[in-house]
Amino acid sequence: MWSDTDPAGIVWFGVFFRYFENAEEDLFRRLGCDRTPLLRQLGIFMPRTSLQTRFRSPARLGEELTVGVGIGEITDRRIGFVFDIHERGTDRFICDASYRVACVDAATFAPRPCPDEIVALLSRALVTT
Amino acid sequence: MWSDTDPAGIVWFGVFFRYFENAEEDLFRRLGCDRTPLLRQLGIFMPRTSLQTRFRSPARLGEELTVGVGIGEITDRRIGFVFDIHERGTDRFICDASYRVACVDAATFAPRPCPDEIVALLSRALVTT
Amino acid sequence: MWSDTDPAGIVWFGVFFRYFENAEEDLFRRLGCDRTPLLRQLGIFMPRTSLQTRFRSPARLGEELTVGVGIGEITDRRIGFVFDIHERGTDRFICDASYRVACVDAATFAPRPCPDEIVALLSRALVTT
Amino acid sequence: MWSDTDPAGIVWFGVFFRYFENAEEDLFRRLGCDRTPLLRQLGIFMPRTSLQTRFRSPARLGEELTVGVGIGEITDRRIGFVFDIHERGTDRFICDASYRVACVDAATFAPRPCPDEIVALLSRALVTT
Repeated sequence: MWSDTDPAGIVWFGVFFRYFENAEEDLFRRLGCDRTPLLRQLGIFMPRTSLQTRFRSPARLGEELTVGVGIGEITDRRIGFVFDIHERGTDRFICDASYRVACVDAATFAPRPCPDEIVALLSRALVTT
Repeated sequence: MWSDTDPAGIVWFGVFFRYFENAEEDLFRRLGCDRTPLLRQLGIFMPRTSLQTRFRSPARLGEELTVGVGIGEITDRRIGFVFDIHERGTDRFICDASYRVACVDAATFAPRPCPDEIVALLSRALVTT
Repeated sequence: MWSDTDPAGIVWFGVFFRYFENAEEDLFRRLGCDRTPLLRQLGIFMPRTSLQTRFRSPARLGEELTVGVGIGEITDRRIGFVFDIHERGTDRFICDASYRVACVDAATFAPRPCPDEIVALLSRALVTT
Repeated sequence: MWSDTDPAGIVWFGVFFRYFENAEEDLFRRLGCDRTPLLRQLGIFMPRTSLQTRFRSPARLGEELTVGVGIGEITDRRIGFVFDIHERGTDRFICDASYRVACVDAATFAPRPCPDEIVALLSRALVTT
């Protein structure tokens, strides 16, 4: 994680978005479907449309982190992912985040409804609050 | 920008946070004070505490971008930066964002009021809406 | 550059490769031809095949850098770029590097001779030592 | 790995250096000693002084990679790490690399001999060729 940390000795805030998207890819995998071949087969990309994050405590160099991921909302128009990061062991709260993604045509970037396969797959990770 | 773009051929969303923080550093510089020596002299770090972004249009490989930065709010407790990114030339709107930063002691990470120097300096970039 | 620096307060070594490739893109631009549309039109990618770097002096947070770029060798089989980075003002030597790129078909990744357009264009930046 | 891949759909070459340094940190951990607290306690940093890499085959989005790491040479003046990356499963060769690190004083960046603790620890991972 040396390369992820900044001169303050903590994970640089922009790095968390890599952790989040990696967790998103893991979620697809755990649900039984790799995201990359799935999107390729469906001919779509899934760009983020909005995002919010709260940083509560710094993640220092050398600390092990746990990244939680789930689905906060899902329709054929948009999908909301939710994330939280804690320090492993102590369970200290580092940050949480949510972002929305849309579906667009891979060739034209024109908006498209989220394919049923995606909605059905991700609905299984819906978080009830 | 090749290294900033993803397999969809557009700037990966996490890269924008580097653009934002670079713009923040530029802002300090334009106001007459490099951020790095200033924070070192004051013995503080300025971690982000929350952040939100809206992505409206993709930034494709090879497009030139303009990054706007200003101060949205400022007190001795928190500072809000606001950003917007447009395509140079066409002025197409790519994304906007805001984030809040706090001041912490560089040694202990304990919260501290924002030093008067910082508040006075950044107030000059306050955006009126 | 805050996001480019590591907990030692210096530019993390992996970040220099972004500086190098940005300089390569600038070189194409200065020679009158944006790399992205050129490669797209030719139907090729130009992957790196080997690379070497010497790091002589750290680039500290807040230091301004100058990146030099040129062509060290060029045939229809491979192109060698050379780079050097100095601190602006003092001219202190930070690092130098060279890498070779090949041409591959954008669809199949099969090797292809470097197109004449590329060889002619880049030959104008050939460094004589 | 979406964020690690470029518009050619392959891992961007500069990303491998993050993989390499992560493997270096893992090596310290497997040998029983976290690098971060060890260096802090010794009051040193270990900057890279030179590096070479050969890229043989692209790592495509979605491919699982195995990163090998070992010590190629070690004296009290310099330490050489060696790396190789293969595709998991097929064992296809992606790239290999080596880099040398030196020891410097954490406060002054003045060169220092590599501490005996480091030499003894890493010698156990010496690769015989």
